[in-house]
Amino acid sequence: MIDSATKRPSLLHTVHVIALRSKVLKLSEFRISRPIVPAYLRPVNCSSIGIGLVGFGTVGSGVWDILERNGGLITKRTKGTVKFEIRKIAVRDSGKTRSAKAPTDLFTTDWNEVVQDPTVEIVVELIGGTDTAYDLVAAALKAGKPVVTGNKALLAERGRELFALSREHDAPIHFEAAVAGGIPIIKAIQESLVGNRIESITGIINGTSNYILMRMTDAGLDYPTALKEAKDLGYAEADETLDVNGWDAAHKAILLGTLSYGFIIDSKQVYVRGIEFVRPLDIQFAKDLGYVVKLLCIVREHEDGSIEIRTQPSFIPQSHILAAVNDVFNAIAVRGDGIGDALFYGRGAGEGPTASSVVADLVEAARLLGQRSGHRGFLPYQKSGVLKPIDDTETAYYVRFPVTDRPGVVAEIATILANAGIGISGTHSPVKPDQPDAEFIDMVFLLHTSPFGELKDALKQIETLDCVTDRPVVFRIETL
Amino acid sequence: MIDSATKRPSLLHTVHVIALRSKVLKLSEFRISRPIVPAYLRPVNCSSIGIGLVGFGTVGSGVWDILERNGGLITKRTKGTVKFEIRKIAVRDSGKTRSAKAPTDLFTTDWNEVVQDPTVEIVVELIGGTDTAYDLVAAALKAGKPVVTGNKALLAERGRELFALSREHDAPIHFEAAVAGGIPIIKAIQESLVGNRIESITGIINGTSNYILMRMTDAGLDYPTALKEAKDLGYAEADETLDVNGWDAAHKAILLGTLSYGFIIDSKQVYVRGIEFVRPLDIQFAKDLGYVVKLLCIVREHEDGSIEIRTQPSFIPQSHILAAVNDVFNAIAVRGDGIGDALFYGRGAGEGPTASSVVADLVEAARLLGQRSGHRGFLPYQKSGVLKPIDDTETAYYVRFPVTDRPGVVAEIATILANAGIGISGTHSPVKPDQPDAEFIDMVFLLHTSPFGELKDALKQIETLDCVTDRPVVFRIETL
Repeated sequence: MIDSATKRPSLLHTVHVIALRSKVLKLSEFRISRPIVPAYLRPVNCSSIGIGLVGFGTVGSGVWDILERNGGLITKRTKGTVKFEIRKIAVRDSGKTRSAKAPTDLFTTDWNEVVQDPTVEIVVELIGGTDTAYDLVAAALKAGKPVVTGNKALLAERGRELFALSREHDAPIHFEAAVAGGIPIIKAIQESLVGNRIESITGIINGTSNYILMRMTDAGLDYPTALKEAKDLGYAEADETLDVNGWDAAHKAILLGTLSYGFIIDSKQVYVRGIEFVRPLDIQFAKDLGYVVKLLCIVREHEDGSIEIRTQPSFIPQSHILAAVNDVFNAIAVRGDGIGDALFYGRGAGEGPTASSVVADLVEAARLLGQRSGHRGFLPYQKSGVLKPIDDTETAYYVRFPVTDRPGVVAEIATILANAGIGISGTHSPVKPDQPDAEFIDMVFLLHTSPFGELKDALKQIETLDCVTDRPVVFRIETL
Repeated sequence: MIDSATKRPSLLHTVHVIALRSKVLKLSEFRISRPIVPAYLRPVNCSSIGIGLVGFGTVGSGVWDILERNGGLITKRTKGTVKFEIRKIAVRDSGKTRSAKAPTDLFTTDWNEVVQDPTVEIVVELIGGTDTAYDLVAAALKAGKPVVTGNKALLAERGRELFALSREHDAPIHFEAAVAGGIPIIKAIQESLVGNRIESITGIINGTSNYILMRMTDAGLDYPTALKEAKDLGYAEADETLDVNGWDAAHKAILLGTLSYGFIIDSKQVYVRGIEFVRPLDIQFAKDLGYVVKLLCIVREHEDGSIEIRTQPSFIPQSHILAAVNDVFNAIAVRGDGIGDALFYGRGAGEGPTASSVVADLVEAARLLGQRSGHRGFLPYQKSGVLKPIDDTETAYYVRFPVTDRPGVVAEIATILANAGIGISGTHSPVKPDQPDAEFIDMVFLLHTSPFGELKDALKQIETLDCVTDRPVVFRIETL
């Protein structure tokens, strides 16, 4: 009774389904006898929509809490069309005590039970990682069930396969929670800026790194001490690797790039550096020079159509609004050819903010349940694109050379830079008042804009100078 | 062949319509012979969608330009489902020379021609005002056509009637462009924060006022000079009244309040003060005390469920992120019970940003064309709500009393405040170095948090003191 072209029921069937669903059922009876109605047959004023959660940690509990607290509000706001019920929750350890008061009979340790449960209409993936998470998201999509996920690594690494499955089975993937917690940047780019050519995106999108850099800046802490503080405060995971090595931020930048330019970006081609090598010395020099060090993601379209995408700690002017983004807050500056400059700011992680995005996606998914082919996402909308090789990307630079303090050092370094055609805009080598004759000093050069590849070549030569005692430290100086 | 319950065509009719629409038509032939297909019969991969513009000033031209420049991008991003064609443009003077290159045969001076044109499927209202604009929006809704508008005054003053018409005729009103230009705050509150109880919204949402206050702060200009500068730069209208008297901002705040709390807010009950009375003296005192003066809109829910909504120039701490919002930029800080604190920042007016929001709404409207009853808006979702009387709202205050400098002045004022139960947190009365014995001085009191009504009563008494030479000037000190 379903026409294959319109995917819509014939009149007769519609009436039948409405009749079935409008029958008042008690909850106990409900789980067993609820008729399995394909989502696209759902009438507008529906009974509750079944959700299955896979993963019930911080964010999962947050989703439970929001639905419990504000479920009625959501139903009112959607004029009675959206009422959620969490019907199944897969966890690793079903015996664990949890803050959210979910009834124990909802729990299972097998994610298949969530995905295959006929009363579960939307699957929420909150376990992280790219293996089991991939399997379960793929299984949900194959079952025609929309997926809500906050898993940036999964989509950045395996988006090509998952978006293809999503399209093949007409089951949307919603991932507002994957980038910048509560900040609705996915929706902003995908819907609000749909009429804009995105010129650039500059983001501070890893709260842990931002906190560590802030403490190194405002309290003069060294990296290990600031990291420990972040861990003690619960701002860093037990294994902090992905946060501090830049990859958490890079995964988000990859998604923002895919949203903005419409093609799947190969994570292997993306330049990523973390904050582990940042020293208090560089933070102090940055301050002296009017800059702040931030872990920045840059996504930018060039005139030749190539896309620059990179993540690294960079110098930004103290006066720029991004310099004021502190603690674990995230911010994303977007420049579009219509909107001009815009900024989105908020908490990039944590129970409430991330759950807020998951719930927004649930409502979105619920609205689309009834209409399929109404897939709002447009990923990917291009078969391919060209990434700008990192060696061709250009900025100004701060380079610190640990050197032996002897006559001729500046000249030798400057000569190599001059031969490479790289201009020097300034030098900085603060003398410690108590050590006017120190043997080893740090010599900072501020360099004019040049391609990164040319700088690298020059630095290789400079490293061979006998006065240079250690590898030079490079920060990009961003023009925002 | 249309079922009245589902509003969907029978199979036979659908096939017929698709056949009609897939016929390749030349443009000339198109305007005349294009079959009139009700929007809800539109197949997913449709030919172009007809837009009618009423008003072709700055924003209208911007919409034309964006569609011309990025129309292809929009179609790609929406996977071929959205392709726009502007089919009719109503203007006051059809002979005027315009920057956007719209063909002259599209122009008419009669908005009825736009609204009634059967090839126009979405009507864009960009003329402003609340009379003609009301008539044409109402006519479009009655014709079942979705409306995109940037008219905050219209929706704030006559939203009740228009939202009712919208629902009655199942024709959505999209108004992202009505608040804060390019900033997608409507979508953020209505969709991204749908799971949040909105605790408060604090907005700088009038660019003209913000520019004037900024120039009074950074260059020490007086109000008339700063206003003239804003006019010279094109930041203020020839008639600046609604910008500087607070009502432009208040209209936007009313819409944000309605979005957040779901009921139509009566503009007559909203407290609004503009920036015309702000003096360089107060700006300077604010600076001395660590504050900045901003025209702020506050919308807040209280524990008793009442909604505080007001617009006025206020003191905010220099360290708050809103204090860094300069020029004609807008910013809206939202606090939700899930997301926590978030901030949306961007250009609040101008051709590009506002047109960017109109185009986003056009895409939204186009997506909904095919499905009606999929009305994403939820306005109003409550029959009514309670506004907190302005006299019951509480903040700390800055009050400047112009006084005769004679012994006893402080004591007399302080006694009246004490009797009213209003605490004094500080006083400030800078002596001009060159006039140590000036007869008339300005005496500033910083007052602890108290209900506005109590302060007003105390001030009435103080005004009767013979030492008080002019009306006291009051600014609220906001806790954000």
